[in-house]
Parts: sequence; structure tokens; C-alpha cells
Amino acid sequence: MGEFELIARHFTRAAPAGGAVVLGVGDDCALLQPTPGHQLAISSDMLVEGHHFFAGADPEALGHKALAVNLSDLAAMGARPLGFTLALALPAADDAWLAPFAHGLFALADAHACPLVGGDTTRGPLTISITVFGELLPGRALRRDAARAGDELWISGRTGEARLALALRRDEPWARGELATVQDRMDRPTPRLALGQALCATDGVHAALDVSDGLLGDLDHILKASGLGAEIDAERLPVAPALRALAEPHRLGCLLAGGDDYELLFTADASAHAAVLAAGAASNTAVTCIGRLTKAGGVMVRGRDGAPVPFARRGFDHFAD
Amino acid sequence: MGEFELIARHFTRAAPAGGAVVLGVGDDCALLQPTPGHQLAISSDMLVEGHHFFAGADPEALGHKALAVNLSDLAAMGARPLGFTLALALPAADDAWLAPFAHGLFALADAHACPLVGGDTTRGPLTISITVFGELLPGRALRRDAARAGDELWISGRTGEARLALALRRDEPWARGELATVQDRMDRPTPRLALGQALCATDGVHAALDVSDGLLGDLDHILKASGLGAEIDAERLPVAPALRALAEPHRLGCLLAGGDDYELLFTADASAHAAVLAAGAASNTAVTCIGRLTKAGGVMVRGRDGAPVPFARRGFDHFAD
Repeated sequence: MGEFELIARHFTRAAPAGGAVVLGVGDDCALLQPTPGHQLAISSDMLVEGHHFFAGADPEALGHKALAVNLSDLAAMGARPLGFTLALALPAADDAWLAPFAHGLFALADAHACPLVGGDTTRGPLTISITVFGELLPGRALRRDAARAGDELWISGRTGEARLALALRRDEPWARGELATVQDRMDRPTPRLALGQALCATDGVHAALDVSDGLLGDLDHILKASGLGAEIDAERLPVAPALRALAEPHRLGCLLAGGDDYELLFTADASAHAAVLAAGAASNTAVTCIGRLTKAGGVMVRGRDGAPVPFARRGFDHFAD
Repeated sequence: MGEFELIARHFTRAAPAGGAVVLGVGDDCALLQPTPGHQLAISSDMLVEGHHFFAGADPEALGHKALAVNLSDLAAMGARPLGFTLALALPAADDAWLAPFAHGLFALADAHACPLVGGDTTRGPLTISITVFGELLPGRALRRDAARAGDELWISGRTGEARLALALRRDEPWARGELATVQDRMDRPTPRLALGQALCATDGVHAALDVSDGLLGDLDHILKASGLGAEIDAERLPVAPALRALAEPHRLGCLLAGGDDYELLFTADASAHAAVLAAGAASNTAVTCIGRLTKAGGVMVRGRDGAPVPFARRGFDHFAD
């Protein structure tokens, strides 16, 4: 099967009527017509076999996840998806891999009205590079540098299950539980797009990002960009049932430094507390206030008695030792 | 060196004042503000070591080429560049590689006012995936399906030198000449952005694409999309001095099926002939009329005597046998 036939078979679909796509897959460029007066939000992520996913990973889940992690970046900005491009390096043109990959990819794309508009396929070690485009109103983006001292700190959904799934798959000695109960949280993350757009439209919501490298590690990005510190009440962190059987240090490790959560971590003025809860309800997404931002730098995690919990591992860095 | 430090050192620069970039590298998404009333043009390409470039290739040239092939797609649509994202998989965070790579990349980006706005770096086999964004007025894009029977067929610059450079580097037995005279045509292609925008603004110019897989192979994309055929006068093809020493079949092979040319192949109404020459002059780019489009399908290449030249190899396909 040739490259062009492969593209035609798996990745060429009619652009949806009424959307932003003027011209989709098949020309030198795709053409999009954004809504007048809006800004474009753009994000790129690259997933490499053996680094971001296991060799032999389920291609259907991989199609989902590759797009989900990009949509999650749009969600964290508060943007509405317009479309995406896919650059794909493959060891071989393998229908048995491509069909489920495309299925997982398009199921999520369709759920969020985010059509594939172009890209590239080539031979090479399995690598998936997606760039996603969204739009939002000028001045409304949820930027990392917009947090204010005194803001409440919020998290969507629950963190830690993806880290437990990884540990169970790797047979890490501390891990307890059934992989099946948490596997989807690692393999099929849910981009919080509806919540992101609802927060973007809520006055008093200031900064946001999506938690991909662990809650504390990503919180650091907001704190550095905004020049602030934070206190987290460990007892307020939402805990999934699967994490309750873990010893406390490992449970806290999953909650605060797990990675691969793709939940939104955001800050809002305390006066917007009820509005944030309403945005969560309107988008059918749990939101939990877990702490507050402080003028003093650094992060303090407080335990049951209010005393600081020591915490070392702050995030995940692909190039760290 | 950590991932975030690496990004800061080599890929974080202030967004240029007065451009479309509202927010650049460092948040979940970049934010762009396109010119009101314009459409977005988007293209993605992926380059993989050992497939698109030699292991050990000069990183400075690679930085240039990785962006050039994407800018060439904007040129082929007639779009003006706004910015690009870079997703980069690297075997290691190697300053001695990254510094010249970034230098080559940014030199070309600066020359075309096309800033880096975001991306991703990760560990993995050396892979460069760029997505580029441009803008143009609605209805003006030079689409592949817009050619008309009777249109003149034009090529910018000259084709074939990149293929000769590849042959000299590989010691292919038919190749003659000095690598140094043609190497830059393979390693540092020139995206024809000024010409593309000038053609886009010229009435009577219909279809265009950039020649990356060989003139005949890419011409086929216009012909299929537009439902037409073409005749090419081999004697009118512009021939670089370096190609004159080749035996005729090899010279024709380079000219018509070489690949990696990144010249614009375009069609225009015969009444626009002088206007096309003026667009070439205004953009300081040679343009040559090399044939015409026909109602009858297929491609005929005519030699000196007007008789058809047989020609087999039509293009390059990454997944072909």
C-alpha cells in the first residue's frame, strides 16, 4: 500500500458542514476560517513509542490519547477546538494497526467537533505528532501568569489513577489493586474541554493549566509565571476509590506527582467560588477547591493536623536523570 | 540539562513586536491574532533521521530545511507566514547539536517573519515535526483543484539539482559533477514565499503546489484534483549548469522526477502570461512556462522534435516498494 492510498483509506474524510474547515486533507495546506474577532490557540505534542507509550500499546487507545493530550491543552486555555493536524511516522503501512488507531482518534475528534485537517505520514520509528487549533475571545485565555495571591486553587476530577495504573502495569512493589479499574485513566484520558470553556467564560477565574507531569510539578509553572506560592490541604484532594488501599506516602505520591492526569488545575478569586462550582456543574465535571495561592514563594502541602507534609518528587521531566 | 532548561536555552525567544503572536512559547497553547477577514493556512511535515536526512546530517542545514519544507507549503497556497510550532524528538539533550539546529531554524524563520510559537521536546529517535500557520484572503488560495484546460503550466527556479546532489553523495554511477555546486539545493531549499504571495494576488493564476516528490509526480496531484491532463515541452525546462554534463535520460530524470526541489509548479490562464512574468520579477524569482494543461487525461512530455519522450518514474512515495 502506497503512502497516498494509506492516507486516503484511513485519514481522508469529508470536512464537517458548518465548521471552520474551508479545505481539509489533500492540498499543500488546510484552510480554516476562524470566527471573526476570535484569537487562535495552538498546541503541539509528540508521543514516541517506548517513551510515552509501551511498544505494542493498543492502537485504538493510542489514537484516543494522542489527540486527548492535545485537546487537554486547548481545555487548559479555555479554547473551543477547530481542528488538528497529524504527523505520523510508522515502521510499516500496517492496516491492522492503522484501522483501530484511526478509529480511536476519530471517535474523540468527532465527540469534540475537532476534524483532522491535514498532516504527514512517513516511514520511521512509531511517532505521533499532533497540532491542535482552537479559538477563544481576546483577553479571555486562562494563562499561567494570571494567578493572584489569595486565589483559591482548584482541581478538576481526580488525580493519581493514571500513575497507579502505570505502577500496576510495571509491578511496582507498592502498588495495590486491579489494573482494570484504573487502566482507562492512563490510556484514555478525558480532555476537560467543556469545563475549560465554562471557566473561560466565568469572571474571576484567573490561571489554568492541564496536569500532565504531576500536580505539584505543573503547579510550579503557574507559581513561577505568576510570581506566587501556594498551600495545598492534602485532606481536600479528591481520592479515587482505587487509591484508598495505598499506604499514605504512595497515595500522596500518586495524587501530587503522578502525571498523565490531564485534569485542569486552576485558580480563581474566592468571590468566584460559587461560580466555579456552577461551571463544574454546567460542564458535568467535578471541581474541588484544594488550597490557595500565597504571596510567599514555594509550595506547602498541609496534612490532617495542618502540619506540613514533606514532599520531594515535584514532577516529571523527560530529560532529567 | 532538563527538558525545560533546554527549551529555555534554545527555543524561547520574545515574540516579535507588531506580529500576530499574542502569546508565544511557555503556556499550554500559543495565542495568535490573525488579520481580520483572513483565512488560516496550515501545513505539517515530519522529517525522520535515516529516512528524510542522513544520520549525522549538519544540524544547521537541518534546522533550515525542516522549516523550509513547511514554508514551501504556505508558498504553494499563496499564504503569508504567521508562525510555527516545533515538535522535536532527540536521542539526548545535546547542546552541540541543538545550538546549530536552532541557528539554522531561526535564521530562516526571521527571514520570513515567522516566529516559533510553541511545541514539544522529548526523548526519542531524531524526528522533527513542524506545523506552520499562514493567512490569506478568502477565495484567493492557489488550490490543486483549480487548474483549467488551456492553462499554461509554469515552474519557478530550476528542478533537478537536489536529485543530482543526492546522487553525488551516494556515488550513483551516472552522476557527474562537484557536490559543492549543488549541495545547498538539497540541504537548504528556498521556500518561494514572495512568489507564492505575488501569484496569489495575480488574477488568472489558478492552481499551484510545491514540487517535493518530483515534477511529474506532483503535477499528477493537480491533474487528478482538476480532472485534466498536461503536455510538457522538455526543451523549455530550465536546466541548471550542473545538469548539463549529464546524459539526457539522467538529466530528464533529475528535471522531471528528482524530488526535494521545493519549487512552485502552477497554472495560469494564457491571458495572464505577462502578469505571471511580472509576479516573478516582483518577487525576484525566475518563472518559466513549460507547457499547458489539456482536457485529455495523462501527461505527455515532448522532446526537441515534438515527439513524446517515454518516461516511467513518476514520483517518490515513502511507502512504495
